[in-house]
Amino acid sequence: MSTAEPESLPRRVGLLGAGVIGGGWAARFALAGVEVRLFDPAPDAADGVHAALARARRAWDRLSPVAAPHEGAVTIVESVADAVADADLVQESAPEREALKVGLLAEASAAAPAHAIIATSTSGLLPSRLAADVHGPERFVVGHPFNPVYLLPLVELCGGERTSAETIAQAAAFYRAVGMRPLVVRHEIDGFIADRLLEALWREALWLVADDIATVEEVDDAIRFGAGLRWSAMGTFLTYRLAGGDAGMRHFMAQFGPTLQLPWTHLTDVPTLDDELLARLVRQSDAQAGEMTVAELEELRDDCLVAVLDGLRREGYGAGEVVAETERRWRAAAADGAAPSDGTPRAALAADGQLRLHDAVVQPGWIDYNGHMTEFRYLQVVADATDAFLSLIGAGPEYAAGGHSFFTVETHLRHLAEAHAGDRLAVTTRLLGHDERRFHLFHELHRPADGAMMATSEHMLVHVDTNTGRAAPATEAVLDVLARLAADQRELPIPEAAGRRIDGDRLRGAECR
Amino acid sequence: MSTAEPESLPRRVGLLGAGVIGGGWAARFALAGVEVRLFDPAPDAADGVHAALARARRAWDRLSPVAAPHEGAVTIVESVADAVADADLVQESAPEREALKVGLLAEASAAAPAHAIIATSTSGLLPSRLAADVHGPERFVVGHPFNPVYLLPLVELCGGERTSAETIAQAAAFYRAVGMRPLVVRHEIDGFIADRLLEALWREALWLVADDIATVEEVDDAIRFGAGLRWSAMGTFLTYRLAGGDAGMRHFMAQFGPTLQLPWTHLTDVPTLDDELLARLVRQSDAQAGEMTVAELEELRDDCLVAVLDGLRREGYGAGEVVAETERRWRAAAADGAAPSDGTPRAALAADGQLRLHDAVVQPGWIDYNGHMTEFRYLQVVADATDAFLSLIGAGPEYAAGGHSFFTVETHLRHLAEAHAGDRLAVTTRLLGHDERRFHLFHELHRPADGAMMATSEHMLVHVDTNTGRAAPATEAVLDVLARLAADQRELPIPEAAGRRIDGDRLRGAECR
Repeated sequence: MSTAEPESLPRRVGLLGAGVIGGGWAARFALAGVEVRLFDPAPDAADGVHAALARARRAWDRLSPVAAPHEGAVTIVESVADAVADADLVQESAPEREALKVGLLAEASAAAPAHAIIATSTSGLLPSRLAADVHGPERFVVGHPFNPVYLLPLVELCGGERTSAETIAQAAAFYRAVGMRPLVVRHEIDGFIADRLLEALWREALWLVADDIATVEEVDDAIRFGAGLRWSAMGTFLTYRLAGGDAGMRHFMAQFGPTLQLPWTHLTDVPTLDDELLARLVRQSDAQAGEMTVAELEELRDDCLVAVLDGLRREGYGAGEVVAETERRWRAAAADGAAPSDGTPRAALAADGQLRLHDAVVQPGWIDYNGHMTEFRYLQVVADATDAFLSLIGAGPEYAAGGHSFFTVETHLRHLAEAHAGDRLAVTTRLLGHDERRFHLFHELHRPADGAMMATSEHMLVHVDTNTGRAAPATEAVLDVLARLAADQRELPIPEAAGRRIDGDRLRGAECR
Repeated sequence: MSTAEPESLPRRVGLLGAGVIGGGWAARFALAGVEVRLFDPAPDAADGVHAALARARRAWDRLSPVAAPHEGAVTIVESVADAVADADLVQESAPEREALKVGLLAEASAAAPAHAIIATSTSGLLPSRLAADVHGPERFVVGHPFNPVYLLPLVELCGGERTSAETIAQAAAFYRAVGMRPLVVRHEIDGFIADRLLEALWREALWLVADDIATVEEVDDAIRFGAGLRWSAMGTFLTYRLAGGDAGMRHFMAQFGPTLQLPWTHLTDVPTLDDELLARLVRQSDAQAGEMTVAELEELRDDCLVAVLDGLRREGYGAGEVVAETERRWRAAAADGAAPSDGTPRAALAADGQLRLHDAVVQPGWIDYNGHMTEFRYLQVVADATDAFLSLIGAGPEYAAGGHSFFTVETHLRHLAEAHAGDRLAVTTRLLGHDERRFHLFHELHRPADGAMMATSEHMLVHVDTNTGRAAPATEAVLDVLARLAADQRELPIPEAAGRRIDGDRLRGAECR
């Protein structure tokens, strides 16, 4: 997905259905800052939605130190009409029964504003049939997501015979704006693209269990220790291209095409889901899950997905690229909100004269065996604040690309309190001094929730000509900003910890007993 | 995989075939410290093997800061007999043609030692047929790996009619010892388990392209932005269990079983690979790959796999668990090699009186926009050395579990040189002083390749009763070790950087122009 493709955040969405998919949609939209109104006739609909929201918040807190936008309100309402009134997008996620969906979509489209997109989450029913009674069928489209909706970016878009091209473009813009990756299915077909592939694998898996070749756990192991790892980054075609070596796809097909004639799948039939097969599936699946509840398994799945997405983001590839774009969007939204009114960095000064340039959520992977944030992550958070300071003075990545950069040469860090996973930490920053080639920075790391001071850090940075590797004077523009910031902060008292040294003299050669 | 299952590192393996799979096996075994002798009649066999070795080294350098064991030698030999002589395991990876494999396996088994396991990498040919002319068919087994063999842990084991149970157990122990995850296929069946699943999905994917429903890139996107992410951690059964909600597999099947009757896959036939379909596949695959060569795509794939495995290791789940076990094995091997001869930590002292407890390879994700290692990663490497020091004095994780731990309260870090991705860094450590509740540590971070001093770091640690959160005396045992180490290092000169402070006085309020 290119950032150039249009995005458009819906102001309000109306959701119909609060099952696994509907709850996931509620979380996906709310976390992106969209107001959600949801209807489901089930008495416990609110519980499922709130559980999905809690899982989604937890997952995104773990996935990204960037703060999400202000969360959209989620309101459980009492009728279809109440859910869709004033919505820009209606998303129906009822059970996979055609007649049920046709009636529900008719009712919703009659009550929704004329401009609203009417979308269904169906995994594979044909949109031309589902649109039978829709009011304004040109605005109807399939928007098929994948569980968990708040983490997996894929959403398949498929129009029916009467769906307009504008509807598909507008729906794609809505989904992109909430961090998803739309895939337009150009031909209306049962199962679209993804579910045809999933069903082929799933039906083969059922045959393996039905024929007693493998247990459900063995089938799963055959996926997750092998091809499943590849499929998280590359699909089956690009993967096989690589198996063919340098000669490309034609060579691969010449080499492996003949195996298509081998009896390597059970393609000619679908297993009958009789009592015996059903009992076997249930028994083996229970054994596989062991003592874990579905909620625990969901947490494990989400944690693994977060870790996989985190890794792919680091590579800037596949679904990781989609996550990185979501973060850029969130950062931009936060920067817009904090934009200095007079266009100078002085506006970044808080009323107390401190700079507040960075905050972060402690990630689960930052915890060590003592159960709290490991020491180098303290430096990571304050170093990110140093990076924000460098951007503020006009010496960030673009400046570095021009052949100059400030390098940290010395750090003095004091650890004052233990931070735990999920803690939100905020940094305040002071410029203590500078000359043409250096500046002296002091950060305090706070935990706003209880006002605790977590750490202080003092840094000396030197301005370097990166072509020669030698210290060199900074540009006039950067020195101007430093001078103004220094003047602004000159009245603040010198921090007690500044200029301190580690006093180990009394310990040296001590006889301790 | 439980660590309790037997492992047994083969001393030497004989490999037959140097294609994508054979080269991958060479890298997998060599990196684990196994000697490899390989035969392939192709004149450029050595090139492919060396390229695979280079990719494998790069991938594992990125995946793990733990140093791999001493690499096993890889020798390209001139005959089957030369490859298998004196081997504990013969691994055949010739093209997927039954007659070719039968002849090759007959020749290899006649020349191999009687105790050698004879394994084939076939993706789906039946072992009872491949064993037709094997000398000692009880020792013949399928060991089917997945590309890239040096990263993906799965290996399917399948015996033929005459294969002994001991052979399967021994082969599993060999594969586990080189960091793989054996899956025993209990019934001999074409395609085993994994390739039946892969082929079902692959044949459906070919239909989608043959019917012009989707391009190869759209098929791949439908996988990697959706279900593929899940499949890297959980297989299809556990994934669907979660889609059913709290009521388990029976509820899921009741809800989704009826969709088995929907025409959601193209199961009844296999597409004919005619010229037109072949041309379309080639054209679309070329477009998907764009300007990237296969070597570049392989690097991208490996980097993504490394990132995914890294993430799953953090969660301790699935393939990440297998990686963690490999690292534990490597750490244990390194510790065995460095085991103190007199049973005391004094043996950890190098001849110069310094402690050498930790080294690390700079990971690609540690680089910032300046193109070198970002500042907090310096602290990560020396903090890992502090952890190694804590383990040395008997105050590591087990000690912390008992309610006491040393916490770093103050750090002074000087950055002296820029580290780059792939640099190997080594830490030397000195105990500068201690009393009952504190110790004072000094690390130097070196780059052995050029002898550069990269950083120094000075730390004060306090011993804490983690129940009360207060400083408390360390145990007698820990204090004994500290006293002995202090005595050993007392003659070393005090480092010039110890006790220094950041001198910002001259910059304060300076008028810089």
